[in-house]
Amino acid sequence: MAGTLSIVGVGPGDPELITLRAARLIGAASVVAYFCREKHPSQARTIAQAHIGPNTREMRLVYPFTTEVSVNDPAYHQNMSAFYDRSAECLAGELAAGQDVTLLCEGDPFLYGSAMYVFDRLRARCNTQVVPGIMAMNGCWGEAQAPMTHGDDVLCVLPATLPEAELAGWLERADAAVIMKIGRNMPHVRQAITRSGRMKDAVYVERGTQGGQVITPLEEREGKAPYFSLVLLPGRKRVR
Amino acid sequence: MAGTLSIVGVGPGDPELITLRAARLIGAASVVAYFCREKHPSQARTIAQAHIGPNTREMRLVYPFTTEVSVNDPAYHQNMSAFYDRSAECLAGELAAGQDVTLLCEGDPFLYGSAMYVFDRLRARCNTQVVPGIMAMNGCWGEAQAPMTHGDDVLCVLPATLPEAELAGWLERADAAVIMKIGRNMPHVRQAITRSGRMKDAVYVERGTQGGQVITPLEEREGKAPYFSLVLLPGRKRVR
Repeated sequence: MAGTLSIVGVGPGDPELITLRAARLIGAASVVAYFCREKHPSQARTIAQAHIGPNTREMRLVYPFTTEVSVNDPAYHQNMSAFYDRSAECLAGELAAGQDVTLLCEGDPFLYGSAMYVFDRLRARCNTQVVPGIMAMNGCWGEAQAPMTHGDDVLCVLPATLPEAELAGWLERADAAVIMKIGRNMPHVRQAITRSGRMKDAVYVERGTQGGQVITPLEEREGKAPYFSLVLLPGRKRVR
Repeated sequence: MAGTLSIVGVGPGDPELITLRAARLIGAASVVAYFCREKHPSQARTIAQAHIGPNTREMRLVYPFTTEVSVNDPAYHQNMSAFYDRSAECLAGELAAGQDVTLLCEGDPFLYGSAMYVFDRLRARCNTQVVPGIMAMNGCWGEAQAPMTHGDDVLCVLPATLPEAELAGWLERADAAVIMKIGRNMPHVRQAITRSGRMKDAVYVERGTQGGQVITPLEEREGKAPYFSLVLLPGRKRVR
């Protein structure tokens, strides 16, 4: 295919946390593509907005669902896989026509990003480049002013979708940990942290680096959590 | 203290992987500080160079040693701790005099960064802000075009300084893993990866995003590794 697919991380939310290279590639693209929910703006597009040129075409890749279907439902993976197939074909159409396409991704494209599934489908068929982005966790530990790993601390990045016992096991072994994608998983995340004896050090961050940011000890936080929330467990500081 | 200490990540090496906010704060600083080796330029300063203003004063914080003393030698921690005490006092002098100081850090300031030790010493005494940076691992997995975590994969970030058996144990449990700070630890890193049965998937990256970048399967790599090298073990791709 004649066009190049650039998969570009736009960072955790604050538009100033975009890289110079991301800004350049967004500005230079013939087509800018992004994932979004039906009838909702794309968070990645909102972050990148200032850099999108007036003549750039935009391609919305609209998720069939987001939180309405549980990841534990087999229909989730079946439908999402078909959606990624369709998205890859839409992008392939532009690339085959010689257009350079920039696919925007919140955070970093290769850590739990939807773009990975499209990349996996297209990498053998076109030229690709990947531009890393500031991850949500980096933005959050910077705003929380929470140094994470001293000396030879091990950092574990854990999806909140893991079962409670498994999560607690990881938390017992890890020095530093980040629990991502909390949302509806908050109740068992809370229980896993308590079970591992680390509740007193847990920092809750909601909408980190975005408008409406909340940073608070998890102990003092009650109730539900949105999708854009995570928990930080800084390392053990054995070295000073 | 009247001045503000900004701790700013400048990313993994490519000067274009600096964020817009980092560029702005470097340009606005009265004093730019950075860690370096005696008689060597600072890697962080080299990355940030284009943004340092003509009237900015620079403060070199010169490590007493780097790789000449092993981290397993008690003298290492004793001397480094005294060095961080002295560095904090140098910065405190400027901050007390009302100067805004920007401390540059390679990668992200709060993942194994020297700046954390200075931050720990100054946080109660002055205004601080922390600007996240693209970490070495993000830059490396982007350049290697290696998606890391699909679905609910767990990512473990492991310092190569861990003992071989401990490293192998982590590699057996982790879905995705990054082994940082390889340098002289290459022989036991290699053994730990072999022991965990994951050699065939291991990707070696040297000087990622910098001049002289090397990306190769670890199996095909022989001999020594420099400090700026890491190994990527992408996740298990159970979800497609």
